[in-house]
Amino acid sequence: MNKVAVLVAGSWGTALASVLADNGREVLLWSRNEEQVKEINEEHRNRRFLNDVELSPLITATSSLQQAVEDADAILMVVPSSGMREVASRIKPFVKKDTLLIHATKGFETGTLNSMSEVISDELPQINPKRIVVLSGPSHAEEVILKCPTTVVVAAGELEAAEAAQDLLINSYFRVYTNPDVNGLEVGGALKNIIALGAGLTDGLGFGDNAKAALLTRGLAEIARLGTAMGANPLTFAGLAGIGDLVATCTSKHSRNWRAGFKLGQGAALDDVLKDMGMVVEGVKTTKAAYELSRRYEVTMPITDELYQVLFEGKSPKLAAQDLMGRVRTHEIEEVASISSPKWQG
Amino acid sequence: MNKVAVLVAGSWGTALASVLADNGREVLLWSRNEEQVKEINEEHRNRRFLNDVELSPLITATSSLQQAVEDADAILMVVPSSGMREVASRIKPFVKKDTLLIHATKGFETGTLNSMSEVISDELPQINPKRIVVLSGPSHAEEVILKCPTTVVVAAGELEAAEAAQDLLINSYFRVYTNPDVNGLEVGGALKNIIALGAGLTDGLGFGDNAKAALLTRGLAEIARLGTAMGANPLTFAGLAGIGDLVATCTSKHSRNWRAGFKLGQGAALDDVLKDMGMVVEGVKTTKAAYELSRRYEVTMPITDELYQVLFEGKSPKLAAQDLMGRVRTHEIEEVASISSPKWQG
Repeated sequence: MNKVAVLVAGSWGTALASVLADNGREVLLWSRNEEQVKEINEEHRNRRFLNDVELSPLITATSSLQQAVEDADAILMVVPSSGMREVASRIKPFVKKDTLLIHATKGFETGTLNSMSEVISDELPQINPKRIVVLSGPSHAEEVILKCPTTVVVAAGELEAAEAAQDLLINSYFRVYTNPDVNGLEVGGALKNIIALGAGLTDGLGFGDNAKAALLTRGLAEIARLGTAMGANPLTFAGLAGIGDLVATCTSKHSRNWRAGFKLGQGAALDDVLKDMGMVVEGVKTTKAAYELSRRYEVTMPITDELYQVLFEGKSPKLAAQDLMGRVRTHEIEEVASISSPKWQG
Repeated sequence: MNKVAVLVAGSWGTALASVLADNGREVLLWSRNEEQVKEINEEHRNRRFLNDVELSPLITATSSLQQAVEDADAILMVVPSSGMREVASRIKPFVKKDTLLIHATKGFETGTLNSMSEVISDELPQINPKRIVVLSGPSHAEEVILKCPTTVVVAAGELEAAEAAQDLLINSYFRVYTNPDVNGLEVGGALKNIIALGAGLTDGLGFGDNAKAALLTRGLAEIARLGTAMGANPLTFAGLAGIGDLVATCTSKHSRNWRAGFKLGQGAALDDVLKDMGMVVEGVKTTKAAYELSRRYEVTMPITDELYQVLFEGKSPKLAAQDLMGRVRTHEIEEVASISSPKWQG
């Protein structure tokens, strides 16, 4: 397993390319942007996403999807969720049946509400769906590229595929665990961006760390409620792709979802925030998708509902945050985990 | 329920006194220190712990334990764990059978490894043990005193006692949930300080947010393992007294346990760190208690073990952190939650 294609050359794709290169793999990194391709090949830099970090000479960029994937033993898809179907469909003619397919995209497809592995499976019927691997966990690209210690999880329907991805990526600073729960990884990875927007929002409003911790706790509970309704294992949300990724995203200056929420909390308009960011803010689309999924699966998601109203219906962030805090008193176990229902042991 | 005694006038005790005063209760705040008593009564300040925040005139300080508790309808014990038994034993003659007893201390008794509610129950046999209430959750005193939105949990063997504590404390910025799980609240509240020390340590070493998120995830898993072995409900650790308190303590500048760990990570000696802090660092004692509890209950606690070696056996923080990161590859579900054991659904 020596040649790996990474699509596309954003911050996370480039950081993963760098992990692969450190493991001695030959990496072809795809970008639509010719200038970026040139910068990576000639200067070993991807300045738009990762400042001045020098990339390994084992990483070569290309703007040809065919060239990127046709000889690849493994393909790592790190395409924004809105572009996943298009890219998967374009590589279909070049992907062999036994290619290892891994994706590390956190989001759902707008409209269909399909997960990313479902989108890939639709477009690449030659790949056994149980062998599509999901990668998730607390992993800011900005730290991975600097070889800071990082721990992630891979999941697939077949253990052997997850283990192949683990072997491909694991090294001394990038620890890779396996987990059978594809659903759980995809729900946890996507939905934590909603809570990160919310955490940024309360921080922008100056609510403090106590309020943020409560928001994270209740956020994890609503992620787990939806995930469990969609067939995930509730324990996954107690792991790296649940609480781990949630904490990393909600409390780090690296999170663009948190930053977008922070600006909203400080009173900026959504359009201005998105324009300023210059990168994809997956949490905005995911809020819409989760709002629709909560109705499809009949699951209560108060944080998602409030953020939906802020993002798409013009509700003031302050009122939304107050409405979240001001709910009537209740027993915690009912509130936090409608997953099971322990009895009062009075 | 109008008169409440709060023992002792540290930062958390004073902040809770302030919540009670905002609810119109008459508060008697006990301190051993005559100068502090004078400062609170004459200047309405507790500068050593809470800077220049003005306290309500409904808060009166006293250095007499008898005066503090003899007419109290409720007693709120916020004594450091090492002093709990002494204070409980001293108030025994003045505590009536029907006094509402709440404690908000996070730690175990050194030596006996008793929980704080067990210590109180030992020393105050006139109180029905099922009516001793525990208060926990993500609540930095520095924010509560400023009326930042905060959410906590109270637990007791009898629902009615927990609800009385809830009624006493709840207001618009201080939300109080009930939970039947006394054990879970006490284990979660105490052990999060160990993980906060560890988080400070990895931050002091410059490991980054990815590593910290992984540490928190695995920390919560080991807290839940011990707690479940001690009879707690695993769901409690998914709630405010588990993940909530853990996140607040590990990611906030207000946490003295995090600050102590940070200094250790940067190379300071333990004795110097403790001297510098000037406040109790519960996590150091709790590491020893949890280390012993993990052996009594035969539960694996790798983070506690490493911190024990750093704190009490002179192991270098860097080596401890490396040993934690460098474990062999494994399946996540085994690693994260030995609470139940889902099968691979391949």
